[in-house]
Amino acid sequence: MSSIHDVARYSGVSTATVSRALRGLPNVSPRTRQVVQAAAAELGYVASPSASALSSGRHRAVALVVPSMGRWFYTEVVEGADGVLRTEGYDAFLINLALGAEGRGRLFSHSLLRKRADAVIALGIDFTPDERRELRSLAVPLTVVGGAVPGVRTVGVDDLQATEAAMEHLVGLGHRRIAHIGGENEHGMDYTVAQARRREWRTVLARIGVTPPPAWFGSGGFLLPQAKRAALEVLRGPDRPSAVFAGSDEMAFGVLLAARDLGLRVPEDLSVIGIDDHSWSESFGLTTVRQDPQAQGGAAARIVLDELAGLPVHGLVHHAASELVIRGTTAPPAA
Amino acid sequence: MSSIHDVARYSGVSTATVSRALRGLPNVSPRTRQVVQAAAAELGYVASPSASALSSGRHRAVALVVPSMGRWFYTEVVEGADGVLRTEGYDAFLINLALGAEGRGRLFSHSLLRKRADAVIALGIDFTPDERRELRSLAVPLTVVGGAVPGVRTVGVDDLQATEAAMEHLVGLGHRRIAHIGGENEHGMDYTVAQARRREWRTVLARIGVTPPPAWFGSGGFLLPQAKRAALEVLRGPDRPSAVFAGSDEMAFGVLLAARDLGLRVPEDLSVIGIDDHSWSESFGLTTVRQDPQAQGGAAARIVLDELAGLPVHGLVHHAASELVIRGTTAPPAA
Repeated sequence: MSSIHDVARYSGVSTATVSRALRGLPNVSPRTRQVVQAAAAELGYVASPSASALSSGRHRAVALVVPSMGRWFYTEVVEGADGVLRTEGYDAFLINLALGAEGRGRLFSHSLLRKRADAVIALGIDFTPDERRELRSLAVPLTVVGGAVPGVRTVGVDDLQATEAAMEHLVGLGHRRIAHIGGENEHGMDYTVAQARRREWRTVLARIGVTPPPAWFGSGGFLLPQAKRAALEVLRGPDRPSAVFAGSDEMAFGVLLAARDLGLRVPEDLSVIGIDDHSWSESFGLTTVRQDPQAQGGAAARIVLDELAGLPVHGLVHHAASELVIRGTTAPPAA
Repeated sequence: MSSIHDVARYSGVSTATVSRALRGLPNVSPRTRQVVQAAAAELGYVASPSASALSSGRHRAVALVVPSMGRWFYTEVVEGADGVLRTEGYDAFLINLALGAEGRGRLFSHSLLRKRADAVIALGIDFTPDERRELRSLAVPLTVVGGAVPGVRTVGVDDLQATEAAMEHLVGLGHRRIAHIGGENEHGMDYTVAQARRREWRTVLARIGVTPPPAWFGSGGFLLPQAKRAALEVLRGPDRPSAVFAGSDEMAFGVLLAARDLGLRVPEDLSVIGIDDHSWSESFGLTTVRQDPQAQGGAAARIVLDELAGLPVHGLVHHAASELVIRGTTAPPAA
């Protein structure tokens, strides 16, 4: 394996300059950095992150904090962030919070974040006040994707805009009796994203003079099985809605399975719309509001890399695009 | 923050002993290790992995290599492995191979595996001969989950047993015209797991005197959208089967959506069975052969930790359990 001395010889600079150039430290001209990077690539030289961290205080690693592994949105954001970080020579750690409340507390106070990461990208989670304090005490760049945290930089779709696009589509088709399966979980804990989408559902209904009865809301926790159970209740209840706006595509799949079990035809008896454009939504024929979580992960990675490079990052809230995708699960209500 | 000197003072031993005790190195009595661990916990002391790696050659980190992030099986294995590793004081890195062929080559030769990981757990992938050589050159413990690699330690279900359980269930119901949607991908690249399941499908059919025509096999690539497309072809073809054995639950969901689009009733017109018991399978009402990938991830983590501790690990192939779960998508064929 090549050493730093080989790279220095090959590129005609000192080992100190090689070290600075490869670790992204200042006081190296762009041209020299290019020459050194090319030489390192040519010779297959890789700096040891352990030694590098001790000498520079940099690990060249970013921690990705996810609430759980098994959801489409999180995996897409992680892929997007990972791709950008790797291209820039950074490694990505995954920190999974799904290990229960005890594990969660432990993670925030322990070694990974404190000792290995130059920056943190946290996904779609609401931190407790204690956790926010802990994160701030890390004194490393932090960006949240897919969930607003007051005072912390965030990347995500504009929930009001996305919800409005979904609701206006249903209203435009003539629906007034529109139920909502939202992200509140079984323990009644609400998420900021879920709250925003639920609020906007009410706002659009209010605009057309409709006040939804409590039976038109079901709590789906952003999970298919829970959303299916919630939809079964909503669709079996009195005053059955003609359409369901689901707060995510995974929850919309649950609504479609509930409709199937109840013998309701989609879209003849029931229209269904989600938010996401999950990789399975086309197969389900689901009408939805598309967002691009890979792009959001990449944007978050670029933001923390800019902060690490000392570049200015403007604005706390970075809104990602969304667009209506019309497929087969929505139609005018039956006469 | 506490230093190693605080821990040494508090537990009444030298800093060298604290260091050895916390890094799991030999020549420390179990009693002393306990005292030091308790003191470290009490004082909130965390060893710096970078310094620790340089002095011990250990990173206390294990690399989890996944072919992509978005599949249920991988995320479950990662959660299981991560949980065990964290409990034992190890961090888990995630290395995502989904970044394309170029990224894949680069990952295996570059920094993460070579410079940060004490061991590697690789998920459900077939390595090329070059990659196998590279992995062996790392000289760290390696275990593969969910896919057989000759000469490498593996954890996974017995594919023949799981396939036999699925096929015998269909045959027991009276089916003879059983199609298979398998894991071969669109480019014709086959996986060992997919090969084993496809071979056993043929073996069970041969046992009842049936030779499946080519039109009864569709290539689903372990992905719902691709499986749905393949199932549409199989179910539209001549000599329509009365049942489909899908090589995974995600592919079985695709078959169910294809049946829905074609107006076929399940299970009246078509029986469908998968392998996995995916977290959504109950909501789909899918009959399947259950496996527990979290337990498999945990078992793989324990194996590499044992190897790191110098304990003997017996056997190259560790078979995990599977069991038939009968739900609503299978029934006797129509008369």
